[in-house]
Order: sequence, then C-alpha cells, then structure tokens
Amino acid sequence: MLTETVALAHGAGGKQTSELIDKVFKAYFSNPYFTADDAAVLDVPAGKLAMSTDGFIVSPAFFPGGNIGKLSICGTVNDLSCMGARPLYMTCAFVIEEGFPMEDLRRIAKSMADTAAKAGVKLVAGDTKVAGKGQVDGVFITTTGVGVIEEGVKTGGALAEPGDVILVTGDVGRHGCTILLARDEYGIEADVTSDCAPLWDAVSAALGASDHVHVIRDATRGGVGTVLYEIADQSGVGIRLEAEKIPVEPEVRGVCGMLGLEPLYLACEGRMVMAVPEGDAQAVLEALRKVPSAEGAAVIGRVTAENQGRVVMTTEIGSQTLLPQPGNELLPRIC
Amino acid sequence: MLTETVALAHGAGGKQTSELIDKVFKAYFSNPYFTADDAAVLDVPAGKLAMSTDGFIVSPAFFPGGNIGKLSICGTVNDLSCMGARPLYMTCAFVIEEGFPMEDLRRIAKSMADTAAKAGVKLVAGDTKVAGKGQVDGVFITTTGVGVIEEGVKTGGALAEPGDVILVTGDVGRHGCTILLARDEYGIEADVTSDCAPLWDAVSAALGASDHVHVIRDATRGGVGTVLYEIADQSGVGIRLEAEKIPVEPEVRGVCGMLGLEPLYLACEGRMVMAVPEGDAQAVLEALRKVPSAEGAAVIGRVTAENQGRVVMTTEIGSQTLLPQPGNELLPRIC
Repeated sequence: MLTETVALAHGAGGKQTSELIDKVFKAYFSNPYFTADDAAVLDVPAGKLAMSTDGFIVSPAFFPGGNIGKLSICGTVNDLSCMGARPLYMTCAFVIEEGFPMEDLRRIAKSMADTAAKAGVKLVAGDTKVAGKGQVDGVFITTTGVGVIEEGVKTGGALAEPGDVILVTGDVGRHGCTILLARDEYGIEADVTSDCAPLWDAVSAALGASDHVHVIRDATRGGVGTVLYEIADQSGVGIRLEAEKIPVEPEVRGVCGMLGLEPLYLACEGRMVMAVPEGDAQAVLEALRKVPSAEGAAVIGRVTAENQGRVVMTTEIGSQTLLPQPGNELLPRIC
Repeated sequence: MLTETVALAHGAGGKQTSELIDKVFKAYFSNPYFTADDAAVLDVPAGKLAMSTDGFIVSPAFFPGGNIGKLSICGTVNDLSCMGARPLYMTCAFVIEEGFPMEDLRRIAKSMADTAAKAGVKLVAGDTKVAGKGQVDGVFITTTGVGVIEEGVKTGGALAEPGDVILVTGDVGRHGCTILLARDEYGIEADVTSDCAPLWDAVSAALGASDHVHVIRDATRGGVGTVLYEIADQSGVGIRLEAEKIPVEPEVRGVCGMLGLEPLYLACEGRMVMAVPEGDAQAVLEALRKVPSAEGAAVIGRVTAENQGRVVMTTEIGSQTLLPQPGNELLPRIC
C-alpha cells in the first residue's frame, strides 16, 4: 500500500522508491522501452536527431486546461517539433516535496501518459527525488526528449527572410492568463483555459504543405512578443505585426486590459509562431486550420529587411508602434 | 554586466536569461552542437541508443572532491555507461533559487564542462528556471544523456548468473560519507573526499577485456548494498559477499563505526558493481586496475543459485549474516 503522501523514503532509492515507481509511474507510463535499468535502450533511425530539455516549476500545479504533468510533456514535445523533429522518446525527472499528496502525483502521471500518447511519444526513463518539506515548492518536473528530424527539413530561428509571412497557430496569451487567474491574487474571475497542447501534428501539417518553413518557434516563456524579438535578432531582420490580426480571446483581452498587460507577452503553451515564404503561406494556413490544435491559425505580420532586430506593430488606427523589448520579470512564472 | 546574484528575471526567458546563458553556460559549454534554438541537432550513428535522466538536489552544493555540477555529469555519464553505452550528448536543466551567488553558478558550470570533457560527452542544450527565494533550496540540476551502445554489448540488472564473480571498481561509501561530514551536523572531522568520477573509461576497459560482462551498475543512491539487492531481485539469484574483501577507506570505516552506519549503504558516485563469469574475472580486474578511476578494483563476492533475492555476507570471523534489506530513509540525501 502506498502512503497518502510522498515521504523522504520514496526518494531514497530503496524499497519505497521501487514501490512509488511501480504503482504511480510504471502504472501509467508502461511501454516496451520503459526501463528498470539505469538507462533505456532505444531504437533510432540513422540521421539527425533533435534533443531538448525543459524544467517545469509552475504554481499552481493544477489549472484550468491542464496541470504541470501535461505541461511538461507539451513543452518538450513542442521544442522538438520546433526543429521539425518528430518526437520519439522522453525522460522525466521529478523533485517532489515531502508531504505532497500521492493522489495529485497520480493525476500528474496520468496526464503525462495521456499527453504523451496523444503526441505519439514514449516515456522511457525517469528519476524521482524527494526533497524535505520546504526545500522545494510542491513538485518540479524536468522532461527531456529526442526526436528524428525528417529528411530535408531545415528550420531555425536564424532562417527568417524578408518577405516571409508570420503566422501563429491560434489565439495568444491564454496559458499565461490562466495561471495568473489561478493564482487568485487579483480577485478577477474570467472563463479562461490554458491552450496547453502538444503540437507535432500542427508542425507536421505545416511541413507537409511547404518545403520552406523557415522558422517554427513555440511561444512559451515571454510569449509571442519575446519569440518575435528573438527571431528578429537571430535572423537579422525586422518584423511588422498588424495589431488587428492578432487573435486574442475576448476574456484574455479583458483581463489584460484590467491589469495593463500586453497579451503578446503572456505565455502560450500550445501555440507556434512560424515564418514562411509568402507564396506558401496560404497553403500552410489551410493545412494548419485542419488540425484541431491549430484551427485558429492566422497570419499576423511579415518579416522586413528594415527595422533590423525590432518588432513594429501597426495599430488598429494605423499608427506604428515599437513593441517593447522583452526584459525584466514582469509576469508570474508560467512554465 | 551580470549581477552578483541570480534574479527572477534571469529565468523569465527575456534579455537577462540570454545574458545568463551567454556569460555563464555558453562560456563554458561551447561546442558545435550547443544550441540557441529550442532543441539541439545531433549526429548519431544508426543502431541502439541508451537514454537516461537524473536529478541532483545535493546539499551542500560544494563538498570535498566535487560539487553538484560535477556530480550531475558523472551521474548520467555513469548511468549510460552501465548499459554499455558510450556517452555522446547531454542536456542540463537548472532550477536556481533567487539570490543564488553568480560566482557559485560559474564554478558549477565550469565543473560540468570540465567533467563532460573528461568523459568525452558534449553538453548540447539546457534550460534555466529561477524560483523565488524559499521555493527551492539553492540549485537543482537535472541532466539527461544519450549514448551509443557498442555492437554486441548486452548488459543489464537481470543478466547475472550463478557462478558470476561480483566486482567493485574501488573503495565504497566515500561520497555518502563526504556529504554526511560536509553537513557538519555530527561534529566529526575526517579527511574524506568524494569518489565522484565519470566511469566510461572503466566500463570501456571492462568491456574490452570480456565479451560477457553480465551486469554493470553504479552504486549511487542506496550504495553497493542496494544495488546488489536489486541485481539479486532482477536476476532471481543470490549474492554472497566476503566482508574482508570489501574495500573501505579507514576514515570511512571510522566514521561509519562512530555513527553506526554500514558503508555498503553509503552512496558512491564513482564506483561500479559488475557481475562477470568466473573465467573472465581476472582479465576484467586487470583491465580495470589500469584505469585511474578504477585502480582500486576488487572482487568482493559471487552470484549464487541459492538464497534467491538475498545478499548474504561471510564476516571476517567466518559467520554468515544476511545483509539488511534496503528500506527506509536512513541516510542523508546524497545525490
């Protein structure tokens, strides 16, 4: 019988650790590659692999639309997808606070398994550490994934070209807004759900519609605004957005209005930003809109040769404004 | 200019995060595979890959013989090595407490880079999160590695056979003892240094000396005793140790004596346990002793058909004793 809360002994590497792994993690993650040894043994095709890691320390751990477990799978699946890599295998490492409810850990593990299955990725190895009460806040999860880069795919933050069209795969800022409200510090109630989703299917659709998808980036920490600045910087280009074309849910816009926040700087956990040549943009947009996780895809702007390293926005009334450079810690941690 | 301590903004994904990555991590980890994108793009040979992940929350972060950075590389390099896999690439994810000294972070990053170079592994991607003061204790590091399993190598915890000889690659319990003393809770002073080391060279030497190395396990959490119980369980065999052959440094034995601890249950971070057929044992032992990290290698026991699932020790006076089953959290966290 597992205890109702996680104890230090569950992280000590002995009998209780085995029991926790068997009854919580293996129960959900089971697949032929899942290892009982020190490392998983994997079959991989020859060629280029992508590898990415991401740590998750979101608070609260459960929020409308997901939890830290779902998030930890989506984050790494999406980072691999950004490189045009089909996610194959993932590992997860937990640091759990002594006293964490076992039932919450089960829910997290189940979400991870469900999301991994949806994304077509296998959880193959894990690690569990338990930290003393107060040494860690709840649960931290680090996931790492490897994926195979499909033949001929070449995408990266430095490959945007003047004339490219900028797309997003759906409305922006929802995850950040959800976490903000879930913290309950502002006393605002609004019906907002995280956009958290694995996006390989959307990326795969885009890559199927164009051989020249130059940039694919997920707009997590720092949101779409930060990602656009990074692309402008890495590619040595400018970016011009059209404010009225940026999809933002009315509730998110409302919350942002009340708190004086720019939705472009709120994290998304289920949205990609892409740069594609103008000639391919319509085909990519149509392909994306057929995928459930990207049915709200939209063109929001264009890559320019001028304004190198900057993101300029044409407002609804036709004026031009420089999107503020992302900088200090303005928003709550949301990933 | 970097600030003297880590701030929340260093983890927010914006300008300060880039600065931290450039000035601390990239400065040390630089290699052609190190990525500025969401995932690293890697060349891998076709065939079987091993993949492993490990989280490190050791306190104190600096100790005689190493620090959490060195440990985080050794741990994953050694987990891959246990599967007979030559470590190729690693990722690292940091969770850092707000206010953590930047200089300590540099020392940790430098140790990681030095240890990775020694182990022949490349750090290719990372992640940095900063948690608010009190949300995490100092710094946690999760490393994940992939390695290529050399042709013909097949090793695993379930492959021990009756008649196999049990070897350790050096004296046991030193890392656990070091951390115990570094915590300064016992007021004991002794000259003990962690055995923390990357062990692919030792494993490679053993695999070169025998085509039938059945089991290779690193004796980390729970120490040699726990690993032997796991092998006995997974392989459905018994294990008989000879107490007088187990190499333990006099200082470690002294500290254990004072605190009533069994050195076999103190963690090592630079020791492997191996099971090899009797006919190959001498060749493996000689090969190991030529490698600096395994020059203290010794035969400590034997795999038996009787006593399934148990580890029995023949004491110095000839009596037989059952090694206690590893269980509760008896020792301080040491990995």
